[in-house]
Amino acid sequence: MNILLHSVYIITMDEEGPTSVINGFVIIKHGEFDQVKEGKPSQEELNNASEVINGKGKWLIPGLINTHGHLGSSLLRGAGDDIPLMKWLETVMWPNEKTFTEDIIKKAVSLAMVEMVKSGTTTFLDMYHLHMETVAQLAQESEMRAVLCRGMIGLCSEKEQRNKLSEAINLHRDVHGMNSGKITVALSPHAPYTCPPSFLQMIIEKAKENNIWIHTHLSETEEEVIKHKEQYGLRPVEHMERIGLFQVPCLVAHAVHLSDNEITILKENNVSVSHNPMSNLKLGSGIAPIPQMISKGINISLGTDSTASNNNLDMFEEVRFAALLHKGISKDPTITKTWDILRMAMENGAKALQLQQLGKIKKGYKADFLLIDPNSAHLTPWDKDRIHSHLVYSAKGFDVSDVFVQGKQLMRSKELLFLDEEKVIYEANSFLHS
Amino acid sequence: MNILLHSVYIITMDEEGPTSVINGFVIIKHGEFDQVKEGKPSQEELNNASEVINGKGKWLIPGLINTHGHLGSSLLRGAGDDIPLMKWLETVMWPNEKTFTEDIIKKAVSLAMVEMVKSGTTTFLDMYHLHMETVAQLAQESEMRAVLCRGMIGLCSEKEQRNKLSEAINLHRDVHGMNSGKITVALSPHAPYTCPPSFLQMIIEKAKENNIWIHTHLSETEEEVIKHKEQYGLRPVEHMERIGLFQVPCLVAHAVHLSDNEITILKENNVSVSHNPMSNLKLGSGIAPIPQMISKGINISLGTDSTASNNNLDMFEEVRFAALLHKGISKDPTITKTWDILRMAMENGAKALQLQQLGKIKKGYKADFLLIDPNSAHLTPWDKDRIHSHLVYSAKGFDVSDVFVQGKQLMRSKELLFLDEEKVIYEANSFLHS
Ligand SMILES: [Zn+2]
Ligand SMILES: [Zn+2]
Repeated sequence: MNILLHSVYIITMDEEGPTSVINGFVIIKHGEFDQVKEGKPSQEELNNASEVINGKGKWLIPGLINTHGHLGSSLLRGAGDDIPLMKWLETVMWPNEKTFTEDIIKKAVSLAMVEMVKSGTTTFLDMYHLHMETVAQLAQESEMRAVLCRGMIGLCSEKEQRNKLSEAINLHRDVHGMNSGKITVALSPHAPYTCPPSFLQMIIEKAKENNIWIHTHLSETEEEVIKHKEQYGLRPVEHMERIGLFQVPCLVAHAVHLSDNEITILKENNVSVSHNPMSNLKLGSGIAPIPQMISKGINISLGTDSTASNNNLDMFEEVRFAALLHKGISKDPTITKTWDILRMAMENGAKALQLQQLGKIKKGYKADFLLIDPNSAHLTPWDKDRIHSHLVYSAKGFDVSDVFVQGKQLMRSKELLFLDEEKVIYEANSFLHS
Repeated sequence: MNILLHSVYIITMDEEGPTSVINGFVIIKHGEFDQVKEGKPSQEELNNASEVINGKGKWLIPGLINTHGHLGSSLLRGAGDDIPLMKWLETVMWPNEKTFTEDIIKKAVSLAMVEMVKSGTTTFLDMYHLHMETVAQLAQESEMRAVLCRGMIGLCSEKEQRNKLSEAINLHRDVHGMNSGKITVALSPHAPYTCPPSFLQMIIEKAKENNIWIHTHLSETEEEVIKHKEQYGLRPVEHMERIGLFQVPCLVAHAVHLSDNEITILKENNVSVSHNPMSNLKLGSGIAPIPQMISKGINISLGTDSTASNNNLDMFEEVRFAALLHKGISKDPTITKTWDILRMAMENGAKALQLQQLGKIKKGYKADFLLIDPNSAHLTPWDKDRIHSHLVYSAKGFDVSDVFVQGKQLMRSKELLFLDEEKVIYEANSFLHS
């Protein structure tokens, strides 16, 4: 299988500025970019291709990478807004989640995957505590790239803790590397406020033993930080460093409330951050100090969190919030740059998820990419100088017409090829009407 | 002409909660809603209709109202991001605007109108200083509802000031009430920092004389407030009250930097506010104290500002930012409510623009409305309880399939009926490639 896709503007994301936009074609072999070239393909290149696609002047960009979410709760979209976090958890999330069967999880995960592919997400991370083997199966069928984590809350007996950890390790044993490496697995303690230090240390031990990286929520709310200090005498990031969490490669979601020292700790330990601006705003958690972290050189990626707290999975919206929010808060329009924000949803996301050769359009990189139709008023006028800006400040999930993951086409002219959109929507709605 | 539109979920916006969502039909006569009823139409009602439309289970909502923009600069989308306000004005906006011919204005305005109708905006306000008669002509041809203002900067001789004011008054004389009342005109001093008090007083005088309301930028940046105090010894809103601006009905854009006393002044004088969260963030201006203004009972509407500082005109995005931003800033998810935010883009916008019987789906109200296709993953699952939430937290401009203004259909199944989308996009792009 050897795909040649021509007549596209390739936003390589390899270096800043319009020179990294190439009017040309790509050749894909074995799920990777084999050639990324300017101009038109030669007759020989055309002859050698098993499939030739005419990009018709569309933009070709790296697929978007969503580094934090909880797919299983997707059916709770809009079930509780404008209420305080604890009330939301106690009256909306927890009572509902108690009733979640495998069938409900299937409906929820399928719904989230449809929404993600349609809006240009090619890779997602899912942290959830129910039926993760089923999620792996669905991820495989969807042909998306996925990082799966069996989320673990440790507010239970040691026996139950060990059971959860076994499930997490078994998930790694059973599905890590599945579907030509598109599915990988990380270990996921839910958060320091739901996992006592002894349990965290148990998890860190297993992570080292099995060479698995760790994903966790960290410092999402001010209250969490205050309580952590009361209980342990240290701020959460400081405490996690002491416990040894960062001795394992680590991605933390939120990182909203950090001291300068904690930012330094994250940087020194090469910890990646999943910035979830929309969820953090909606739940009233606050605004992560992204400009400070960028200036320290911390790898910042983007995540949506769940549809129960966002309430959508369109990564272009997350990009837009990340791009605008910090300028307004700091009253400094220069504090974040188009280029840095756009990379968060691409190369930085790949790094955060420990995925190699992903997030650029470049020879040897995985062929995870999108075609964007620029023939919309909101992307007009455009030229090479304005494409990066339009992607950050104007583009929408709907502008994505075609989606490829590892060289395989998942969406063609807005039609999903591995997911049954109509059926998925129908079944998700039946959850409310049953 | 007597349209019957059946099989729709009518989001009347008449009162909070799911009971104001009606599964039924509407009858439109003379550009107004004549009936808004539950259930199915009778045979007699069907017989009396000159046109019967099957809404196929879509959501019918009031058209969105954009209360602040500058259509003429639409071709500068993406021409300068991430730079400070004054540098942006001096290096991007002003040099470009100096070269704007009538032809460029036509291209820019047409582009903005295509983007607006496609994303569900039925009414817009345009403040611009070039070729406003041409804009009126284009607005008429588009069949949109428009409030047009000849923006006036007073940093010039008194003679030039008088010329500008004459142009503004002549615009009112010539186009106010045009196109069956869909086009109206307001007077628009650009801002207190660009209009000396003597000029403002001249404008206020004319406004009273001709019974025209006033729209202006006010308190957008901190610097503006500091300089105003230095120059006049008063904060801008306090000074405007003293000058007599609020003796005329008034809509102010931005209102980002306000003292408590200024909020009280706005309330006491019944001044409406156009909240432009995305533009305010992007230019680093700050965040308007919307929750405080809501609690005082000030009428808050929403505006996009120009595509040069936003960079798109999708009012659903503006709704989303307004809904999420203040929760995050205040760290209180209860501080703004779904219902209040949604109304900003509908009924509050109509009030802000001095337009009567607009912004609800209700007998006697103008038939400006949209159909939303709910068959998308990001609007799933839904029922009457979740529709308002989905409109605020998940819906996108693209979900709009049909647009009506004053009972006339402007978009059918995403196809524009009065604007030539393809031609408009082509010509707008030619601006960059010429
Ligand atoms: Zn989360
Ligand atoms: Zn403006």
